[in-house]
Amino acid sequence: MILIDGIAGAQLPADDRGLHYGDGLFETLALIDGHPQHWQRHLARLARGAARLDMQCPPAAHWQADLDHALRTVPPRPRRVLKLLLTRGSGGRGYAPPHPARPRRILQLTDWPAWSFDPLRDGICLALCDTPLGRNPCLAGLKHLNRLEQVLGAAEVAASGADEGLMFDDRDELVEGTRTNVFVALGDTWLTPALDAAGIAGILRELVLEFAPAAGIAVREARIPRGELANADEIFVCNSLAGIWPVRELGGACPRRFPHWPRTLQIVAALRTAGALA
Amino acid sequence: MILIDGIAGAQLPADDRGLHYGDGLFETLALIDGHPQHWQRHLARLARGAARLDMQCPPAAHWQADLDHALRTVPPRPRRVLKLLLTRGSGGRGYAPPHPARPRRILQLTDWPAWSFDPLRDGICLALCDTPLGRNPCLAGLKHLNRLEQVLGAAEVAASGADEGLMFDDRDELVEGTRTNVFVALGDTWLTPALDAAGIAGILRELVLEFAPAAGIAVREARIPRGELANADEIFVCNSLAGIWPVRELGGACPRRFPHWPRTLQIVAALRTAGALA
Repeated sequence: MILIDGIAGAQLPADDRGLHYGDGLFETLALIDGHPQHWQRHLARLARGAARLDMQCPPAAHWQADLDHALRTVPPRPRRVLKLLLTRGSGGRGYAPPHPARPRRILQLTDWPAWSFDPLRDGICLALCDTPLGRNPCLAGLKHLNRLEQVLGAAEVAASGADEGLMFDDRDELVEGTRTNVFVALGDTWLTPALDAAGIAGILRELVLEFAPAAGIAVREARIPRGELANADEIFVCNSLAGIWPVRELGGACPRRFPHWPRTLQIVAALRTAGALA
Repeated sequence: MILIDGIAGAQLPADDRGLHYGDGLFETLALIDGHPQHWQRHLARLARGAARLDMQCPPAAHWQADLDHALRTVPPRPRRVLKLLLTRGSGGRGYAPPHPARPRRILQLTDWPAWSFDPLRDGICLALCDTPLGRNPCLAGLKHLNRLEQVLGAAEVAASGADEGLMFDDRDELVEGTRTNVFVALGDTWLTPALDAAGIAGILRELVLEFAPAAGIAVREARIPRGELANADEIFVCNSLAGIWPVRELGGACPRRFPHWPRTLQIVAALRTAGALA
């Protein structure tokens, strides 16, 4: 189910700048019983990203109308994946954006992924990717459409048989998972990479940073050199679909095993109490 | 005029990985009297890029058939722009590429750009972009579809009124123009950035490196810190459409003027003698 500027259709103009340059942004949301989770936060991030790229962002009412339209045309399901894409649309002479640009919105509903494990009970196996992430403060944090680094990282993860993989920048500092943000318990504090030069600032990461402190859990942004992973007491990764995935095994040159993850479960409980996690 | 997998049509499946992740490559060629310039070199670069991304590259015969088909449907013109795009096609669960993937080829013919100046006579005005280029050796040199940095750079150039802009990496080393490669005459040698961590290795750059030495002109790849531009004797930028553009003015904190560009014209003459430049 795909809507392009509100019209059902699985085809996109082939001159779209999203295709040619990755000139756009996206959001991925959990749709539970027809309700998009953290809808306002996702739309706010999209608007922040559009402002950074000097791109007009459609009003929330347009996305809401698209979603209502889409939900009327599909049978109800407990869970679906909702993806929003915003591109700068067609046109322009080469890289330079056209003025005025007519951004294009794309809404896509897909099936909920069929994970083969119960992550909170089983934990996941985390690989370390060799593909580095380039550093660019102009693009850091944005969920933009230039994701070739993540494609190469995800291919490494698939080849390794792990469930997810961590990626590092060219200074060997931890940034994120291929499709998740990462938190590392070191001593009495949870740390997560600062994302001021690379990475996507995820909504669930934002919720952890916001709601964990209220439950008395210390968490802050920090630089995390690769070597610090050897000292981790626990690790979890998170995103809007997966929720929070505790890490059972960490691959790489110095593999680690984490038989239990009580502190991760504390975070899960804190977010559930706050109504921030399903 | 657009062909998608050989079929005329201006629409693309909206689940194409080129749109979602920039998971693909492209080539831009000058089509002169119906003849694509340096066709074999462009196809060879596309194949090298596909190998780096672990993507199947269609045989040259498919691209040739597409081009023949396209040329039969448009009126003859002295010059056109030919763009080839190769994406990993549709499918896959998130970032991880599907196996097997069915790459999609897109061929586009557009009008020759109407430049308002005679570059070899007038020279061009070159801005210095603030947008940095991230460093990633896995992607360096490839003409892939993740070009948001160039979009931001080109927007800066458009705002400045310059004809093109130079871009630097996060170590402040020169990489390239927003849509060109760059050569800097320092002393008796022409230098061009090495592109082992960022940038696109252009075909005209390849031709300059190959044919200038035969004409007795010293040229080599090098690291070029931003400050070295203050010592430049001449600068030119180049790409497959523009050819070679001598620089008349260089913007930035220490603006420079180059009233003449005899050494750039030597390079132009050397490439023309070799049949490498129209």
